[in-house]
Amino acid sequence: MEQQLNSRIISRGKEFFGSISGEKPSLFNKGAWMGKVMDWSMQNEQFKIQMFRFVDVFPTLTNGRLLTDHIREYFGEEKDMPPFLSTGARVAGMFGSLGGAVLGKAISANIQEMARQFIVGENTREAVKNLEKLRREGFAAVVDVLGEATLSEKEAEEYVATYLELLESLQKEQEKWDGLAGKGGDRRLDWGHAPKVNIAVKPTALFCLANPQDFEGSVAAIMARMERILLKTMELGGFLCIDMESYRHKEIILEVYRRLRLKHRDYPHLGIVLQAYLKDNDKDLAELLAWGRKNGVQLSVRLVKGAYWDYETVKAMQNDWEIPVWTIKAESDAAFERQARMILENHDICHFACASHNIRTISSVLETARELGVPEDRYEFQVLYGMAEPVRKGILKVAGRVRLYCPYGDMVPGMGYLVRRLLENTANESFLRQSFAEDAQVERLLEDPQMTAERERSTRDGKPKRERPGVGGLPPFENMTMVDFTRADHRAAFPKAIAEVRGRLGRTYPLHIGGTEIITKDVIPTVNPAKPSEVLGQICQAGISEVEQAIAAAKAAFPAWRDTAPEKRAEYLMKAAEIARRRIFELSAWQVLEIGKQWDQAYADVAEAIDFLEYYAREMIRYGKPQRVGHAPGELNHYFYEPKGLAAIIAPWNFPLAISMGMASAAIVTGNPVVFKPSAITGIIGHQLAEIFGEAGLPAGVFNFTPGRGSVMGDYLVDHPDISLIAFTGSMEVGLRIVERAARVHQGQPNVKKIIAEMGGKNAVIIDDDADLDEAVPHVLYSAFGFQGQKCSACSRLIVLDAVYDRFMERLLAMARATTVGPAEDPAHYMGAVADDKAMKSILEYIEIGSKEGKVLYMSPTPEGEGYWVPMTIIGDIRPEHRLAQEEVFGPVLAVMRAKDFDQAIEWANSTRFALTGGIFSRSPEHIARARRDFRVGNLYINRNNTGALVERQPFGGARMSGVGTKAGGPDYLLHFMDPRVFTENTMRRGFAPVEADDDWVI
Amino acid sequence: MEQQLNSRIISRGKEFFGSISGEKPSLFNKGAWMGKVMDWSMQNEQFKIQMFRFVDVFPTLTNGRLLTDHIREYFGEEKDMPPFLSTGARVAGMFGSLGGAVLGKAISANIQEMARQFIVGENTREAVKNLEKLRREGFAAVVDVLGEATLSEKEAEEYVATYLELLESLQKEQEKWDGLAGKGGDRRLDWGHAPKVNIAVKPTALFCLANPQDFEGSVAAIMARMERILLKTMELGGFLCIDMESYRHKEIILEVYRRLRLKHRDYPHLGIVLQAYLKDNDKDLAELLAWGRKNGVQLSVRLVKGAYWDYETVKAMQNDWEIPVWTIKAESDAAFERQARMILENHDICHFACASHNIRTISSVLETARELGVPEDRYEFQVLYGMAEPVRKGILKVAGRVRLYCPYGDMVPGMGYLVRRLLENTANESFLRQSFAEDAQVERLLEDPQMTAERERSTRDGKPKRERPGVGGLPPFENMTMVDFTRADHRAAFPKAIAEVRGRLGRTYPLHIGGTEIITKDVIPTVNPAKPSEVLGQICQAGISEVEQAIAAAKAAFPAWRDTAPEKRAEYLMKAAEIARRRIFELSAWQVLEIGKQWDQAYADVAEAIDFLEYYAREMIRYGKPQRVGHAPGELNHYFYEPKGLAAIIAPWNFPLAISMGMASAAIVTGNPVVFKPSAITGIIGHQLAEIFGEAGLPAGVFNFTPGRGSVMGDYLVDHPDISLIAFTGSMEVGLRIVERAARVHQGQPNVKKIIAEMGGKNAVIIDDDADLDEAVPHVLYSAFGFQGQKCSACSRLIVLDAVYDRFMERLLAMARATTVGPAEDPAHYMGAVADDKAMKSILEYIEIGSKEGKVLYMSPTPEGEGYWVPMTIIGDIRPEHRLAQEEVFGPVLAVMRAKDFDQAIEWANSTRFALTGGIFSRSPEHIARARRDFRVGNLYINRNNTGALVERQPFGGARMSGVGTKAGGPDYLLHFMDPRVFTENTMRRGFAPVEADDDWVI
Repeated sequence: MEQQLNSRIISRGKEFFGSISGEKPSLFNKGAWMGKVMDWSMQNEQFKIQMFRFVDVFPTLTNGRLLTDHIREYFGEEKDMPPFLSTGARVAGMFGSLGGAVLGKAISANIQEMARQFIVGENTREAVKNLEKLRREGFAAVVDVLGEATLSEKEAEEYVATYLELLESLQKEQEKWDGLAGKGGDRRLDWGHAPKVNIAVKPTALFCLANPQDFEGSVAAIMARMERILLKTMELGGFLCIDMESYRHKEIILEVYRRLRLKHRDYPHLGIVLQAYLKDNDKDLAELLAWGRKNGVQLSVRLVKGAYWDYETVKAMQNDWEIPVWTIKAESDAAFERQARMILENHDICHFACASHNIRTISSVLETARELGVPEDRYEFQVLYGMAEPVRKGILKVAGRVRLYCPYGDMVPGMGYLVRRLLENTANESFLRQSFAEDAQVERLLEDPQMTAERERSTRDGKPKRERPGVGGLPPFENMTMVDFTRADHRAAFPKAIAEVRGRLGRTYPLHIGGTEIITKDVIPTVNPAKPSEVLGQICQAGISEVEQAIAAAKAAFPAWRDTAPEKRAEYLMKAAEIARRRIFELSAWQVLEIGKQWDQAYADVAEAIDFLEYYAREMIRYGKPQRVGHAPGELNHYFYEPKGLAAIIAPWNFPLAISMGMASAAIVTGNPVVFKPSAITGIIGHQLAEIFGEAGLPAGVFNFTPGRGSVMGDYLVDHPDISLIAFTGSMEVGLRIVERAARVHQGQPNVKKIIAEMGGKNAVIIDDDADLDEAVPHVLYSAFGFQGQKCSACSRLIVLDAVYDRFMERLLAMARATTVGPAEDPAHYMGAVADDKAMKSILEYIEIGSKEGKVLYMSPTPEGEGYWVPMTIIGDIRPEHRLAQEEVFGPVLAVMRAKDFDQAIEWANSTRFALTGGIFSRSPEHIARARRDFRVGNLYINRNNTGALVERQPFGGARMSGVGTKAGGPDYLLHFMDPRVFTENTMRRGFAPVEADDDWVI
Repeated sequence: MEQQLNSRIISRGKEFFGSISGEKPSLFNKGAWMGKVMDWSMQNEQFKIQMFRFVDVFPTLTNGRLLTDHIREYFGEEKDMPPFLSTGARVAGMFGSLGGAVLGKAISANIQEMARQFIVGENTREAVKNLEKLRREGFAAVVDVLGEATLSEKEAEEYVATYLELLESLQKEQEKWDGLAGKGGDRRLDWGHAPKVNIAVKPTALFCLANPQDFEGSVAAIMARMERILLKTMELGGFLCIDMESYRHKEIILEVYRRLRLKHRDYPHLGIVLQAYLKDNDKDLAELLAWGRKNGVQLSVRLVKGAYWDYETVKAMQNDWEIPVWTIKAESDAAFERQARMILENHDICHFACASHNIRTISSVLETARELGVPEDRYEFQVLYGMAEPVRKGILKVAGRVRLYCPYGDMVPGMGYLVRRLLENTANESFLRQSFAEDAQVERLLEDPQMTAERERSTRDGKPKRERPGVGGLPPFENMTMVDFTRADHRAAFPKAIAEVRGRLGRTYPLHIGGTEIITKDVIPTVNPAKPSEVLGQICQAGISEVEQAIAAAKAAFPAWRDTAPEKRAEYLMKAAEIARRRIFELSAWQVLEIGKQWDQAYADVAEAIDFLEYYAREMIRYGKPQRVGHAPGELNHYFYEPKGLAAIIAPWNFPLAISMGMASAAIVTGNPVVFKPSAITGIIGHQLAEIFGEAGLPAGVFNFTPGRGSVMGDYLVDHPDISLIAFTGSMEVGLRIVERAARVHQGQPNVKKIIAEMGGKNAVIIDDDADLDEAVPHVLYSAFGFQGQKCSACSRLIVLDAVYDRFMERLLAMARATTVGPAEDPAHYMGAVADDKAMKSILEYIEIGSKEGKVLYMSPTPEGEGYWVPMTIIGDIRPEHRLAQEEVFGPVLAVMRAKDFDQAIEWANSTRFALTGGIFSRSPEHIARARRDFRVGNLYINRNNTGALVERQPFGGARMSGVGTKAGGPDYLLHFMDPRVFTENTMRRGFAPVEADDDWVI
């Protein structure tokens, strides 16, 4: 930054501070309850977490018991609470149980008071009244309607309606309002140039399925509703600003803005929000300005720093995406100044709203505008209602025009907004906190953020990085990066890969035995389940003689493979992972066509296959190192593992690459040669294992590809005496059959067979009475109907507590109605076709059964014509004893049960033969702890979907009739494929024993 | 020490050093090959180990191939060898394979030369000739016959014969010898007072079964042969000194000395060796002197520091005994001075031989003797032949009388002696090394050792102790201290406990179900197998209805027990361990009577039971702590375990407490209530579990004691749908039956049953052509016949390489002949009765079969009269295809196979259906490495017995038909009793995620 300008900014800033000296935002007033909350939160991270979480759940605590229970669960007994929380209650405590109620009422009142600080009203009438009050104080407003997450078309419509109602009210009201003072004299405008009505709209509130995967669909749907609000706004000459939300929707929102901008090119008052904390924002802003100039349209940008820093960082790290936001606060501040300048330089085509509470930022904009000679009607200042009162007062003094961002609406969504504000104010880097709660040096607060950023970056870079230890010289395991549909290249890759794959249909896929391809006479075609007439390929089928050959090949390969060093075996897996990564879009495309996976699900399956390869490779290196047991001198005891023998891998079609690859690679890397039988309906995907392992150079006979008819060769393979290990994933019926048959030890059999069986599930999700429905509804829908519910982990029972049943179900059903069923290759569809004809018939039968046992609440339309279509089905009034509550349907059928309380919900959840996955949505610490112990499933998920377990992070598998207690992708998994051995050497000879470094020794 | 005396000692020492200034022991002469070996060994610990081990194995390398192979295996390729080793070979290397042979010859010659340094001759003739030479140089001698370990009566007799022959030769020879100069003038004596013939005898060479467990038997046997040598010595007026060996035999040897001393009280020339490095020695010496005085007999003590420091330390640590030796070298030096003074103070009744090379020690003795006015004929100095030539020369100058300790005999035992000498000289603390190889300061070398010791002790105490981490606040696991029959109290405890137990015979033992004792009408008696008419007790038998009751009790106990904290569950095990420790002799006594275990074996079984309790308690605490998997921010994934359900424990009789307790405690501590069925023939020991768990306060129903007839309730228990887990140890036939039956999933069964089955073995021990037979013979005998061979780990096949077959078998059979079969309660017997009538018949049938398949090499006598007696049986000429090489006999029958080479031995070893234990005796690094990989058994033992696996140190169990790959007492064992679960919480609410300490995080 130019030195002179920076000096002027600093002088301006000092003046600004001087002008508000001694004033404090109400938020930091320690005399008030809210100020105490802020104070404690800043001093005590644990209290802050509990407090903010409590604020979040607070609106659902609609009765005294819920309220007092949660207060205890979040803050402990009264004696453990901060004094300001418990005051009053302590006194009241003397009157027995009345104490809790009194405490609850006091806290409740205080939180509501706190919320009102930031919210301009609970309804349109209140809001309008308050806006008028603010205008009398000299403040303009931008009005935002708070809402729960939009989960349905109905909710989107209600949202639109609220805006239209608001505009209607304001239309009448604005006539009565004098324009705020300013240069111009037009009474109809504020400050002589600005519409008196100014609203902000969140785009994702207009379409519940907004999703970058379905980019075009999302843009179109949002645009349609946004335009209705815009038209009404235009009618009254108002200003509409399109809010920016999370990074995920950024490209969609920009596109909506551009399209609306072009379509209504002559109406000037249409703006968009850009977020300075996004690393993309320099480029996005430059492109937008260039686009505006090229198209000759007027733009308006409200520049903010961004309010979802935690969320964006966490999401990116969870998915292994590049973090989209600046990770040093000052970097965002610097970006803001840089980008503000860019807008001001383009003030001829772009109006600017500077939305910041940071006095350095504001001073910088003031001085930059002055330097560039920007007319006052081309920029304005915005501040959040209820925050930073001294700052808004200061700006009013110096610039004469401040617009307050005024949300209004219900308590429930209001709490989310409140938590964001509390977070902002209590963050260590918060300008307000530093300025008003900590009295930081003015110099430091006004420093050029570019310099601050550079200093902090160099401090950070100088610190030693915490690195997790890897094994065998490899970096530590990381999950494969998730597909990122915010990236245009990822979006484009799918149609392209699908088209390419379509160019290769109709081939014949051979067996691979002992390194040789074998073509059989018997073949089975595989087809596109959304269009069965589309034959994808012909899969050769192994008979008994081919199975014998494969076993012979595996047996021949065994001794050398067993004695191959673990690190070397792991290397083949790493190579295979590399190959799969290279082919990931192509492999995903095959899944879209052969088994009807949605794009993201297809990609996730391939990614999981890669994860298994990478994870098991490392696990084998870890287990491959003999472990010294005991430390007595004079003896060495090494505990180590060796493979069990020949492995039969019998794979399902639902995770056709991931589960196949997981089971096969675990067997291979532990030293067990494999005879692999894929599912008949995903033969091409099964063949991909042969391709990948072949290219990786696995020695002949270590992996043998033998698809075959179960009736012909299934039992034969299971019974074969040379097989020592069977890894199976599939239905309970087949699994138990294998367990029983394989237990018979036949003549000449070397080992008792080890069975790793992953079987079915009848997985329940519990909706607690304090659940966050905004989260619960879409997660349940996804858990139940993602990939047509054809996951052993899928939610197939939904247990909703009576207290929230009506509200939750209403929203769930509404969201379900918003979805469509159709070919998976079109990302607009939420659900595709089911696996095959047999699956379709079986699921339809269950729907028939369910419709008799309970009441069909929803059954979606399905496409006309060919394809294995089953409606998305939700059946209510199901009781634990119903077949629909007990039997695995393995399709898009959700059985809904209404439980009277949490105890009953847990009891029902545990009431099946299965124990695979489960979920609860709850914000009660006690209920979460209780579920952790008592909801006895292999994988329990709290407040998220219960599918999509990731390797390492969610080792997957269940007990009871869901499996034999193994956990794929977990730290114990490889143990099941090996036998431990112990080598004991007496190292003492002639009374002389060498001392080992880790001996227990006398000195 | 008195200051003045110390000053005199130091002056004397300085004088001594001065008198030998510039001289070096030949050992440290770097010009010679031996000096180079010493030099390299002192610089390079790894080379030292390899070199000394090579010296040890050297005598067995009887052909060129063996020699060159071992040189390569021990020292690597020529290019990697120290120059002095490879010199010559490098040149020769140019002539191809000839190089190895030349190198071998060179090394061979050098080692033989090195051995000759310390050994006065290879036979009596050579020895006598050399003694004469030494006398000419002015040195007297004490002659010791080197021998292999005595493993049989024959070898003991040969040893006696050699001494008699030696004495015979010396008797003639001494006539020709002039007495060495001294004060006296008697030509028939040396120095005027000492017999010219002086021999030393190792007592354990006189009895192959010397063992403190059989104290009286050992003393009597040694004494009988020692007396024969003594009488001959007396005949020629010679001196006999009884050597002291390892600590284990110390009390026996002292007793032999005392008895001989009394019996031949008037013959003065009978001495004993005492070891100053033993912590006991102050007390032992004082007691011996008091005893001598009381009995009016003349004593003679040769005081040494002790040569088995490594061995004593290692053995004690391996067995968790107090280390019997001083752990700081200077402590031994100080003890020597203290004890020398004690002897000199008693010079009227005790002649003293000071055996040390330490100039400080020698000076101290000289000055102390002077101070006390000890006549010169009451003390003398001894030095080892071949060592410390300057020292012996110095003593000769100053004292005029030095006796050299002169061993003679074969190369093979000579190497053991050589290695001990090399170790002594290269030890860091070696006085000779410090004096002559490192030129340490004379002041330091002459310092009062008491002061040195105190300084070193305080340095050591100041150092931070390395401590292995414990879990849950407990100290780290340690194996139960082994019984120590060197302690009189342990020896006395057994007869006492057996007598007490005998006072409690005939009781009725009830079932224990749900915390209640139940008496049934059906009872089965248990008896003493050595005397079946002795009924020990009546065991109540559970029928189907009792099994149902037990299962119901376990089921009722399950929920609470499952949810009991792992630490709490572990506490019950710790309490049980405490109870068993308290009762250990009593519990052992029951085993002696009920199943015929030898004392040590009985104690070991109880100790192992305690180990299981202590180990699994800690393991559960370790596993009880949920493990965070993955570290993505915003989500918490906890991996943890829960019990599988109800466990049926079906136990064998052969380790009636240990295996029962191991399986039951693993089930219990992991949260699975137990229905326990002991073996019918060890019902009383089975009942001890109920007693111990009852006293430990285990909640009702968690452990249910239900002995019962297999035919009545065995299958019922296995098939029961409420059982989720079966832990079984027993025969392959029963194990496979359980595996097969339990695989059927019955109506209402919650889980696929988990089976932990430990089955049979047909374990081979291979004797390689370079084996140390002194070690191999007794270990094989013990592995095959300990507890009558009734261990699944027992050696039942012996594969001996052709090259050593004759020599090894001769010694093995001779040792077998030395043993006796009889009631286990008498510690004189090596073998007791077998378990019961059925076992006896089955074993006798196998002997019948074996005698047809092969050739009976040995069949021991058995006691007359009642009892389940089976002879100790060794059958040769067995081939891999014979039944005796394939079927488990489970009794004292050893099948011997003669293999042409190591490859064939390994092939045969692996040629059965079993894969439990195995052993090899070999000193070939390559063969050991090969066996580690290719000898595919659960527990492979190198150069030791292959029974007696210890918890933690040798996790036990095998694969193939020996078991399902679990390892009792190992780090994975508890995993088999639990199912893993994963708890996943989305911790992000409203975009706000608390940061966990171990999150992967951006900064």
